[in-house]
Amino acid sequence: SPAPTMPSAPGMPAALERFWTDRVRRIDAELERLLPGSDAEPQRLHAAMRHAVLAGGKRLRPILTMAVHEALGGHHPAVNAVGAAIEMLHTYSLIHDDLPCMDDDDQRRGQPTVHVAFDEATAVLAGDALHVLAFEILADIAPIAVLQEITRAIGTTGMLGGQMADLEAEGTVATEPVVANIHRRKTGALIIASATAGAHLAAVSPDVVQKVADYARPLGLAFQIVDDLLEVTGDAARLGKSTTSDTKHHKVTYPAAIGVGPSWERARALTGEAKVALGQWPAEADSAILSALAEFIVSRDH
Amino acid sequence: SPAPTMPSAPGMPAALERFWTDRVRRIDAELERLLPGSDAEPQRLHAAMRHAVLAGGKRLRPILTMAVHEALGGHHPAVNAVGAAIEMLHTYSLIHDDLPCMDDDDQRRGQPTVHVAFDEATAVLAGDALHVLAFEILADIAPIAVLQEITRAIGTTGMLGGQMADLEAEGTVATEPVVANIHRRKTGALIIASATAGAHLAAVSPDVVQKVADYARPLGLAFQIVDDLLEVTGDAARLGKSTTSDTKHHKVTYPAAIGVGPSWERARALTGEAKVALGQWPAEADSAILSALAEFIVSRDH
Repeated sequence: SPAPTMPSAPGMPAALERFWTDRVRRIDAELERLLPGSDAEPQRLHAAMRHAVLAGGKRLRPILTMAVHEALGGHHPAVNAVGAAIEMLHTYSLIHDDLPCMDDDDQRRGQPTVHVAFDEATAVLAGDALHVLAFEILADIAPIAVLQEITRAIGTTGMLGGQMADLEAEGTVATEPVVANIHRRKTGALIIASATAGAHLAAVSPDVVQKVADYARPLGLAFQIVDDLLEVTGDAARLGKSTTSDTKHHKVTYPAAIGVGPSWERARALTGEAKVALGQWPAEADSAILSALAEFIVSRDH
Repeated sequence: SPAPTMPSAPGMPAALERFWTDRVRRIDAELERLLPGSDAEPQRLHAAMRHAVLAGGKRLRPILTMAVHEALGGHHPAVNAVGAAIEMLHTYSLIHDDLPCMDDDDQRRGQPTVHVAFDEATAVLAGDALHVLAFEILADIAPIAVLQEITRAIGTTGMLGGQMADLEAEGTVATEPVVANIHRRKTGALIIASATAGAHLAAVSPDVVQKVADYARPLGLAFQIVDDLLEVTGDAARLGKSTTSDTKHHKVTYPAAIGVGPSWERARALTGEAKVALGQWPAEADSAILSALAEFIVSRDH
């Protein structure tokens, strides 16, 4: 069965739960619409892309794009498609990350990973295909600033640099600055770009785009710290992936660097920073959902 | 030693030879400028990207971009950078194609392939990094039409679909239409987009862009047929890659489908088609280099 797409957390506000349920439905419909059908040539490649993307997932990144866009009063018709493209980019990185030559993981989002369900060659190409499909969509519908920020976020100074540093750090004893630096690039950069994409679509000033980044930066790091923590303390069935992968690969993680208790404290402190940053947004912004989202990040159990 | 970057062929016109030598120098300088330094973090990833791109190569695709652009009287300042981005996209596809799970080739452009010189994980990421760097460059400097055509050319209806079909056809007995269809997608689509990029940069009408595609379509197929033929009859040292790879992988090729002699005839006929298409270009176009290039395609020996 697919991984749960609906996050739940003790005390999650009903408004956030409603928002999340509804927007995940929109994003999933958009992904379904934008992914080529598995009856179209090359069928096997399209089937692999759909397997990876439509297996479910929390859709945090597009949720963030939509929530920021709405908080800033945006009404851009392409916001769903931009969110879907960002989710494709995230999924491409997961497919390649899961390959035998990388993390060699065989479960993701409660499903066999692409190289297990199909084969390694198809997994490499399916990742590549989601990568380029996302840019095809963005080139068709997004302001150029969105493309520019996203390409930088997932390039060698961002996500790919973080993946490389993560592989190179395996088996080393990591200090907090080292882990934070990997997390900021590997997951943080695209989370920031997901948020600023929503701001660009709302056509706000560069100053407001900066303030959106100031909110997303601590949020992204807090999210990844909790991800590290849930690998140690979480429930594999609810997470939809192995909870021993980090240990197996001797990954550098926050709990390994500073311990479980201090990691939770750090994540909560970062959430506080995100909420402080929200306070700097224009007065007319409606930031209730984004504030609840920041709190949810550190209280989620999957 | 790197593969020869200068093509040579019996009777290659001096004007084409001068053009090629000079434009390869410009493209290589642009690639050197646009690729991150291997002293910049993440060093190993940047070193792998540079290894793959700067190993040499004929640079056919950027040469085509520049030749079309100049033939149409263009003076766009970004033509070298667009050519370099296209060469990065081509190189990304080679790196992934050479992986052990794909063609498992250990030589390319006279050098060890990236997964041999570095490792498999670095090769996957270096391909990904060239892919996104190319889009970062194009998003910064190219007209959006160039981005749109290139993303379609290398997506699942183009290059990636061709790679997938190529893998799936291994070991089958291929007819000419099957091989032609694979070649048109796997190599033809990006060759067409390389040519039309030059046209878009010269700001010609959509009608002229179509005529440029009509020239590049047969040219691209002829190029790939000759590539198949040189694998059978060529010299590995001059080609800079194994000449037995197609056989080892039971690849479907033109000579296997219709024989060596008919394949040369087919390539020559396609060259003729390309030259006929050139005759339909606007009268003010200076197509001497493009005409010579079409002839060179079928007389080259590497």
